[in-house]
Amino acid sequence: MALYVQKFGGTSVGSAERIKNVARRVVETAEAGHQVCVVVSAMGKTTDELIDLAHELSPDPSRREMDMLLTAGERISMALLSIAIIELGHDAVSFTGSQAGILTDTVHGKARILEITPTRVVEALNDGKVAIVAGFQGVSTKKDVTTLGRGGSDATAVALAAALKADVCEVYTDVDGVYTSDPRIVPNARKLAKISFEEMLELASTGAGVMMSRSVELGRNDGVRIHVRSSLKSTEGTWIVSEEEIVEKPIIAGVSHDASESKITLSRVPDQPGIAARVFRALADAEINVDMIVQNSSQDGKTDISFTMPDIEMVKADPILDALSAEIGAEGVRSAEPVGKVSLVGAGMRTHPGVAADMFDALSAAGINIAIISTSPIRISCVVAREQLHDAVRAVHDKFQLGG
Amino acid sequence: MALYVQKFGGTSVGSAERIKNVARRVVETAEAGHQVCVVVSAMGKTTDELIDLAHELSPDPSRREMDMLLTAGERISMALLSIAIIELGHDAVSFTGSQAGILTDTVHGKARILEITPTRVVEALNDGKVAIVAGFQGVSTKKDVTTLGRGGSDATAVALAAALKADVCEVYTDVDGVYTSDPRIVPNARKLAKISFEEMLELASTGAGVMMSRSVELGRNDGVRIHVRSSLKSTEGTWIVSEEEIVEKPIIAGVSHDASESKITLSRVPDQPGIAARVFRALADAEINVDMIVQNSSQDGKTDISFTMPDIEMVKADPILDALSAEIGAEGVRSAEPVGKVSLVGAGMRTHPGVAADMFDALSAAGINIAIISTSPIRISCVVAREQLHDAVRAVHDKFQLGG
Repeated sequence: MALYVQKFGGTSVGSAERIKNVARRVVETAEAGHQVCVVVSAMGKTTDELIDLAHELSPDPSRREMDMLLTAGERISMALLSIAIIELGHDAVSFTGSQAGILTDTVHGKARILEITPTRVVEALNDGKVAIVAGFQGVSTKKDVTTLGRGGSDATAVALAAALKADVCEVYTDVDGVYTSDPRIVPNARKLAKISFEEMLELASTGAGVMMSRSVELGRNDGVRIHVRSSLKSTEGTWIVSEEEIVEKPIIAGVSHDASESKITLSRVPDQPGIAARVFRALADAEINVDMIVQNSSQDGKTDISFTMPDIEMVKADPILDALSAEIGAEGVRSAEPVGKVSLVGAGMRTHPGVAADMFDALSAAGINIAIISTSPIRISCVVAREQLHDAVRAVHDKFQLGG
Repeated sequence: MALYVQKFGGTSVGSAERIKNVARRVVETAEAGHQVCVVVSAMGKTTDELIDLAHELSPDPSRREMDMLLTAGERISMALLSIAIIELGHDAVSFTGSQAGILTDTVHGKARILEITPTRVVEALNDGKVAIVAGFQGVSTKKDVTTLGRGGSDATAVALAAALKADVCEVYTDVDGVYTSDPRIVPNARKLAKISFEEMLELASTGAGVMMSRSVELGRNDGVRIHVRSSLKSTEGTWIVSEEEIVEKPIIAGVSHDASESKITLSRVPDQPGIAARVFRALADAEINVDMIVQNSSQDGKTDISFTMPDIEMVKADPILDALSAEIGAEGVRSAEPVGKVSLVGAGMRTHPGVAADMFDALSAAGINIAIISTSPIRISCVVAREQLHDAVRAVHDKFQLGG
């Protein structure tokens, strides 16, 4: 008998028909003699519809009340799933984040889990029931309802799996698992059987959409084995596990990409101490996340500072950059350029020094110019022109023979 | 400074526009220097839609899970109302039944309130905030979410008003108040300025739809002054208060009616002890509510038993009655007859013995035959043919000169 945590997203529970499918899936695992704790998101578009309603009432709704509002979503999906499971003849019981003992801090809208005391969930499991827990939500130290922000349901599932000492946390999604690259761009991309937490973290933070870094990090910290798999097929997906569990270690795990950033250049900035700090402090104060930064070597006491940031932050950033540019005596903000970022991720890089050179070769051979480079011990990212991004992904994927 | 509990039903919060109206209404009271605790129902058709979804999954969904499901409805409306009030510049905070300290028994779907400990509500009010509490819901002694059944939001409001020692419990509705009769049937029906709990109880239990008996009873037991008024106009409605508070006591409060029952006759039943008990025990076991019962005097050892019950229970009752009829040796179930019940209510009846005779006169003068009569110290009800019901109501209303 194993203990499974199974997480189903909003699409998987988007209609009565789909909820029945999920129920069958859950009951299969339970009837095979396992303990099952299910974590669900709100149905399909429920969250978006509730947000729209709130915005009809206020341009900037109270965050506490937004959390109260949005948590109605999982309450609906979890109760319906419970009803569907009971209808199949297996006992089930649903719990809110609060009832499941998910204690968070008091930051409404993006609370962090502080502690999980899943007493009632354990009782239900020991009684042979399927326990269904609302994803995305908890209760704060002030006893207010909180939500965990983007990717919150995955975070609930992984943290709960850790607290329950589950054998596995299964994350059901609309793709089969984690691929060496996006199959829509690289048709021969291969599904990975296993990937390490570290590699998955790098892929997630550079554009792979399967899971958010936050949940992978939770899994790594608590050693929760995560199985990302399809909610439609019963084939194995991808296991995210610790590096030691991976016997045959390939050098490269995969190639990720991101087409949502722009590159800004502040040109001919006086090359003095403190200038860069002022620029990035001003952007940070406006809660704008700057991704990659590069500063050219100084010529005649002037230098160019380039950096990338999300396209959607440009509206907010533009006036700040114009003001800054004048303030620090730069010659101007070069107009923002939409760029793409291709990233190569693999734990084997640590011991194989030629990887970066091979990647640059591949891009060069494909006639693609590199604007910015950044690296971590197990990742190399290159910023390229956005219209060349897909070619870049394919070139790098081919070069390292990652295809199936 | 007074403490108001204001209850708004599902229609009043049925859209963003209506929620804004309610918010303005609440803020008006708050800005006049009063403390305001608001109780809300789920938006418009939300509850029905959720019930439909559940029935797509199971013909007989788990009651615990239904409660989990349906309580999402008030969560949505209360959070939205809170957002709308804050947008108007007044601070507000919403509480679930559990957060408001509404403790119930464990009977899912129709839980009874055991105790209210509204610590957080009191804190919010003392901080100058509008406190918004989810109607219709509580938390059971087993820490499960419960719902209070039909009329549950009114019950929440009145019980909360008692716990908070509120000066008044305002029940906002789509009518102006309590009338001497239904204005759709009796055009000159008059709005009552005041009515006693006892009279309101009798009216509510005999067809007046404004409030359910349950909440009126809660109000009576705890001496909560209830003000039933329109959510669209700012005119005074009807105050439901204790009899001592009513200075000018009219003999009659009003005439109510009910057109939802059928009359069944078991004919030529052996007139032996225990027969009636068997009939009504069998119906009670099937959870069928029998209303009025009449047994004719015996002739040649046989008697007729007639009684009324809700039309909608007929499907369930038919086979039971057929079986019973054979079992007890009755000559047959006379086919059910749709009937109407007209009731005259007034505390003055206790001291004015001629009231019943006047009522029978009025019906007789209108050519209306009475099938069954039942009385309480402050009520007389007559069952008549359904097609004569409206005429009966008007005849009685006229006879006692209740019109405006």
